Amino acid sequence: MKAKVAINGYGTIGKRVADAVAAQDDMEITGVVKTRPSFEARIAQEKGYDLYTTARENIEQFKKSDIKVSGTLDDLLDKADIVIDATPGDIGAEYKELYNKHGIKAIWQGGEEHELAGFSFNSEANYKEAIGRDFARVVSCNTTGLVRVLYALDTAYGIRKARVTLMRRAADPNDIKTGPINALVPDPIKLPSHHGPDVNSILPHVDVTTMAVKTSTTLMHLHALNIELKDTPGEDAIINLFKERPRIRLVSSSDRIKSTAEAMEFAKDMGRPRGDVWENVVWKDSISISKGELYFFQAIHQEADVVPENVDAIRAMLELERDGARSIAKTNKILGI
Amino acid sequence: MKAKVAINGYGTIGKRVADAVAAQDDMEITGVVKTRPSFEARIAQEKGYDLYTTARENIEQFKKSDIKVSGTLDDLLDKADIVIDATPGDIGAEYKELYNKHGIKAIWQGGEEHELAGFSFNSEANYKEAIGRDFARVVSCNTTGLVRVLYALDTAYGIRKARVTLMRRAADPNDIKTGPINALVPDPIKLPSHHGPDVNSILPHVDVTTMAVKTSTTLMHLHALNIELKDTPGEDAIINLFKERPRIRLVSSSDRIKSTAEAMEFAKDMGRPRGDVWENVVWKDSISISKGELYFFQAIHQEADVVPENVDAIRAMLELERDGARSIAKTNKILGI
Repeated sequence: MKAKVAINGYGTIGKRVADAVAAQDDMEITGVVKTRPSFEARIAQEKGYDLYTTARENIEQFKKSDIKVSGTLDDLLDKADIVIDATPGDIGAEYKELYNKHGIKAIWQGGEEHELAGFSFNSEANYKEAIGRDFARVVSCNTTGLVRVLYALDTAYGIRKARVTLMRRAADPNDIKTGPINALVPDPIKLPSHHGPDVNSILPHVDVTTMAVKTSTTLMHLHALNIELKDTPGEDAIINLFKERPRIRLVSSSDRIKSTAEAMEFAKDMGRPRGDVWENVVWKDSISISKGELYFFQAIHQEADVVPENVDAIRAMLELERDGARSIAKTNKILGI
Repeated sequence: MKAKVAINGYGTIGKRVADAVAAQDDMEITGVVKTRPSFEARIAQEKGYDLYTTARENIEQFKKSDIKVSGTLDDLLDKADIVIDATPGDIGAEYKELYNKHGIKAIWQGGEEHELAGFSFNSEANYKEAIGRDFARVVSCNTTGLVRVLYALDTAYGIRKARVTLMRRAADPNDIKTGPINALVPDPIKLPSHHGPDVNSILPHVDVTTMAVKTSTTLMHLHALNIELKDTPGEDAIINLFKERPRIRLVSSSDRIKSTAEAMEFAKDMGRPRGDVWENVVWKDSISISKGELYFFQAIHQEADVVPENVDAIRAMLELERDGARSIAKTNKILGI
């Protein structure tokens, strides 16, 4: 019997996780929760997902829009084994009591604090610790992207110190309200940024400091990484290390992938759903050892990289698979990573 | 008698240097060189600058546009003591032989190689070495911005290692041909970038590595700096150090300057010509000592920060003033820095 998964919040992350879960052979979507009718709700219906809404008084609105609603979040939580909370940042915390009341396991996203779940998750770094847990938080897109490379490097060579500048996309492609259109915004101004401590929620012993800037783009975050390793290998060794990781994709400027825009176009041409890039995109030709320190660039698709992590977290928490590497391989194979 | 300055190339930098030179009491504009008639040539004429053109065959075009031309570059070079070469990058090198032939001193911009002039200039770091020289290169906007802070920090505390990520504006505000509109472009992909070695053309002993990314904005470059100092002072000491420097302006997010856009608006409100920011804009509230290392953000107005350096370079090379600090103070006072 397949594990029953509820999705609370069917936006940028929720709809992607829903499709990734539905594609697996050991889990299924019991229902998705949307506050208001929208094109996304309509497409969810066309895909065959049962739609639920947050409160009974919203049902009328869905009826008017000719979208069938099967009930409320409360109804859904009684039918599922686990809920993916993909509600907007800081809203998810408000649902903890409700999830507790229904005795349902829950996975929050990186917009919530570590303390809410008491456990932060990354498939490669700490799958084992997630087994059987009731609550987990899949860390943010940026943190997921950082943990993937830092975990690999720390395991192989030991990290003495990592210094990262995060150039963040300002808005998602469908967001028409957010700026800046033409500016660079140090955010936060106060340094170092919170991204380093967030990495430490998964890799507590890694010394990492971060600076972050919002940039006028909607396509991917870009990380400029400087890392002092305890053992310094050659550039080829780093390339081979990354090649072997399940969720790092090496690209090259000689292949004409020279920017976040071309990396996204590449994913579209590969036929990826919604043009998603689930892996870290690491520029192979940026990998450089200079004066004993490692430098490279990576791009992170903010809408997508946490999606396979959510699938693995479900598998660990519901004990569908006790081996992290096997869950990752299974998720990757089905998604086509 | 005022020193006679020729400007070869009346574009983004040339027109700004012309105005800054014209404002000084010890130098004057003998003429400016423009290849083709344009609104900029017309405004130069209105300002009273004598216009010259690169070749005799261009004169007809100017006549047709009702713009008076006084002759060619060759004619102008015979009348001036020094020429500011503000021609497009790599073009300036082609003029070296001509300048030599006319026995005129020349100042190139950062688009040219250090080797062309054999000497790279920054007002604060090496004014003394410029005295009496025939050739100099005022380093690029990014390098000028880096040298200003690194020189100050190295002199006061000693720099063990500086690691800088440069988020570059992709195009100038009047540039309608250049992208990207919506992407982040690591440039160069190969790390570290050439900006570090360019700093070393002025500060050879400072260990500095740089990574650079083009961003979808026209307003200022933004630098994220991480610096290991030999002696690590408190944050207040760094703030005071920067406060005392002649070309660093401290701003604060509590003053509602949170981005490059607001920093530029601030300059407009101050009544600066063309809204120019000649100083490094350093965010006071970003200055942070974390785990013994210094972090801060600074913004650099790519069209403007080298302008006062050109004025000082003229003064040093023509021996109008032998004391760098006095030249800087004079330039600043007249410009209103």
